Amino acid sequence: MSPKAHAPNNHDDTIVALATVQGVSALAVIRLSGKDSIKIAQTAFAGKNLLEQQSHTIHFGAITDGERTIDDVLVSVFKEPNSFTHENAVEISCHGSPIIIKEIIKLLLKNGARLAQPGEFTKRAFLNGRFDLAQAEAVADLIHAETDNARQAAHNQMRGGFSQEIKRLREELIHFASLVELELDFGEEDVEFAKRDDLKNLILKIQSYLQVLIQSFDQGNVIKNGVPTVIAGKPNAGKSTLLNVLLNEERAIVSHIPGTTRDSIEDEMILGGITFRFIDTAGLRDTQDEIEAIGVGRTREKMKQASLILYMFDLSQTNSTEIKQEEDELKLLGVPFIKVGNKVDKANRFILRSLENQDFVMISAAQKTNIEELKNLILNQVHINTVKQGDVLVTNLRHYQNLTMTFDSLSRVLKSMDDGVTGDFLAMDIRQSLHYLGEITGEITTDDLLENIFSKFCIGK
Amino acid sequence: MSPKAHAPNNHDDTIVALATVQGVSALAVIRLSGKDSIKIAQTAFAGKNLLEQQSHTIHFGAITDGERTIDDVLVSVFKEPNSFTHENAVEISCHGSPIIIKEIIKLLLKNGARLAQPGEFTKRAFLNGRFDLAQAEAVADLIHAETDNARQAAHNQMRGGFSQEIKRLREELIHFASLVELELDFGEEDVEFAKRDDLKNLILKIQSYLQVLIQSFDQGNVIKNGVPTVIAGKPNAGKSTLLNVLLNEERAIVSHIPGTTRDSIEDEMILGGITFRFIDTAGLRDTQDEIEAIGVGRTREKMKQASLILYMFDLSQTNSTEIKQEEDELKLLGVPFIKVGNKVDKANRFILRSLENQDFVMISAAQKTNIEELKNLILNQVHINTVKQGDVLVTNLRHYQNLTMTFDSLSRVLKSMDDGVTGDFLAMDIRQSLHYLGEITGEITTDDLLENIFSKFCIGK
Repeated sequence: MSPKAHAPNNHDDTIVALATVQGVSALAVIRLSGKDSIKIAQTAFAGKNLLEQQSHTIHFGAITDGERTIDDVLVSVFKEPNSFTHENAVEISCHGSPIIIKEIIKLLLKNGARLAQPGEFTKRAFLNGRFDLAQAEAVADLIHAETDNARQAAHNQMRGGFSQEIKRLREELIHFASLVELELDFGEEDVEFAKRDDLKNLILKIQSYLQVLIQSFDQGNVIKNGVPTVIAGKPNAGKSTLLNVLLNEERAIVSHIPGTTRDSIEDEMILGGITFRFIDTAGLRDTQDEIEAIGVGRTREKMKQASLILYMFDLSQTNSTEIKQEEDELKLLGVPFIKVGNKVDKANRFILRSLENQDFVMISAAQKTNIEELKNLILNQVHINTVKQGDVLVTNLRHYQNLTMTFDSLSRVLKSMDDGVTGDFLAMDIRQSLHYLGEITGEITTDDLLENIFSKFCIGK
Repeated sequence: MSPKAHAPNNHDDTIVALATVQGVSALAVIRLSGKDSIKIAQTAFAGKNLLEQQSHTIHFGAITDGERTIDDVLVSVFKEPNSFTHENAVEISCHGSPIIIKEIIKLLLKNGARLAQPGEFTKRAFLNGRFDLAQAEAVADLIHAETDNARQAAHNQMRGGFSQEIKRLREELIHFASLVELELDFGEEDVEFAKRDDLKNLILKIQSYLQVLIQSFDQGNVIKNGVPTVIAGKPNAGKSTLLNVLLNEERAIVSHIPGTTRDSIEDEMILGGITFRFIDTAGLRDTQDEIEAIGVGRTREKMKQASLILYMFDLSQTNSTEIKQEEDELKLLGVPFIKVGNKVDKANRFILRSLENQDFVMISAAQKTNIEELKNLILNQVHINTVKQGDVLVTNLRHYQNLTMTFDSLSRVLKSMDDGVTGDFLAMDIRQSLHYLGEITGEITTDDLLENIFSKFCIGK
């Protein structure tokens, strides 16, 4: 796993993949990229000579294997470096039929292309210098964005985000690192090319920028991944009913957004542009005999991991003492919570009076009473500003981890300087920081790192 | 429902729709068509001035509402009449994200476009003379094709198919019709501008062409809609097991074709390029008490409607007399059938010997024995030639019905001539034939007819 600067593109082959969603539709787009992509498209094309066409032009014709015409298509020609991948590229817009898509791709494979791996187009774009690694990762975040905030955050990052600033600060640090290493060449002579005060100031400047980015991850993470939310309470408090009411109400809205059908939105609600992800707490329901202790333990664990707890009280079945007891236990978890008094329609007035002036939201999940007020309370718990164009926000866990590691290693550099360690140790500490920083934007990559990032992309991207 | 020649396009508005399948993917294509489509795209586009660009060119830029950039996109410009619809048209290729698609379409709607109705792009292409109605219908058949034969048949029809010949013959008939009608102007004078012998010859020529088309529907229908197949037999003969074996084996192959997931391929098998559609015969299984009679009756009805019956005998449970009896009943239905001896591994050798030299295929559905031989037999029952480029094949029920009605009304014309009816009745008969013929290619349409055809298209097509 030796780190290396990213190599110039040595992929001479041409890759092909369906770039749109598979299925029956008006159009589908099949994408080719690579040195020979226009040549390979031409072998399957009856129409103008694509090789003689200008970049960014569209040509009507037919895809044919010589004997059979598979489909009438529009072919878009892109000439290097003016394409997404910076390579020669072709997009074939055919009728959106699985049979046609299959036949065209089969023919292109026969004529010299090979099937693209997941994320390979974006990987090539990165390797060819189209954008840096953090921007490439934003492409995947962009297409998976579930809310407009998440889309805007990904778009900002794809447009550059913190990349430029990180790169600039890294350049400055490299400058100092080389000066420190130069000192080493002079061995015993005790020269100091890298002024220690300037180095210290630079490191503090870098750390203060990193600090801002690191702190933005709290918001960025919520925007990208949603708020982990637990609905808890005693058996029969109405947890499932509330979950269904919340999901169904919002599901109706979600379904107006055409096709927000990701793998599973089973337990997910988008409220005010924020995704709330419900964590299953089956444990709370399985409270029988000896199993009880384990179940409660598990649920408590999940509640601790949550960012928000909706804690439900069955007002028709409880009393002040029990409520007090449950509240005390809830507070011990140290997680933000909302106290939900359910079955308010069946509660006796002693209970209701005893809870007056307390921060309870009184609902009936079954009757769908006061659900709007509950939703407002939920939203108030999460302080998210709308993401604006240009806002720099760290949403990617990998970036967050590398930023944190860089910050810590820079702290070690400062400490080494204070401790007066020798130049070679100092240089080693600085190199470590440069490595972490470089991995963020992909100026330093490893095959494993790239494999790990791009294999999570979809095919065709 | 007054018939009318298809009007010139009076749609001044610009329509917009997603043209690719909704979902998460590398790309999605949003399509605009109409006089102002380039202008409307320009209002949402930061980049070059699209209005100044040549047709069939692609432009990189951003979709923006002025404050927020929604996505970086490629915009393709098509200028009338050089587009699918023959109108100004724009295709916006954005990142394949439901949120982005929604935001871009919302913005275009705000800026003056309106959401396209199902099939409206193709309808406009038809109304603007891009192709005739039979060709327009082939576009839908093309994207829904499940086999390569169905694709080729649809493609042939889209490329023209029988349209030219039908139009030419109709022109000749119109010529005669006008001569006959001219005779009417001369009232009592007993002139004969339309030579009766020539008219008769033309009608016979048209009928002989229609006959070929009408006869091709048997094949065309199988290619488009598949072979309705029933698996029948006594309870516990192994019908479900066989169905599952056939479906699962072929399902594995089908799933290699990326995304042939239509609404339901529950009971469908593609074998040798032909779709076999299994008809549920639950009735056969529900044979209890008085219900029995009804159930058997229903199943027999479904068997009669099938094009092929796989009739199963449980060889471990039957005897020669029973087999003979079942065979006799089967023959009465007049539907092609294959006799399947199941559970061959559990059959006694008397049974096996008695069936020697009989046209039984011996299998074990549970053991998956001899399934290949059964499949070959199934395929041999359906005599379908591979559809070649240029083959003219009627696959559309509407066309088939109109061709048949035209044929019959032309027979009435011939009979009228033999009966020596007066010119005005003759003219009426000819007009009826012209009407049916004209409806096929859409030279005569009604709003209802168009509504009926295009509402079955998907949105974006």
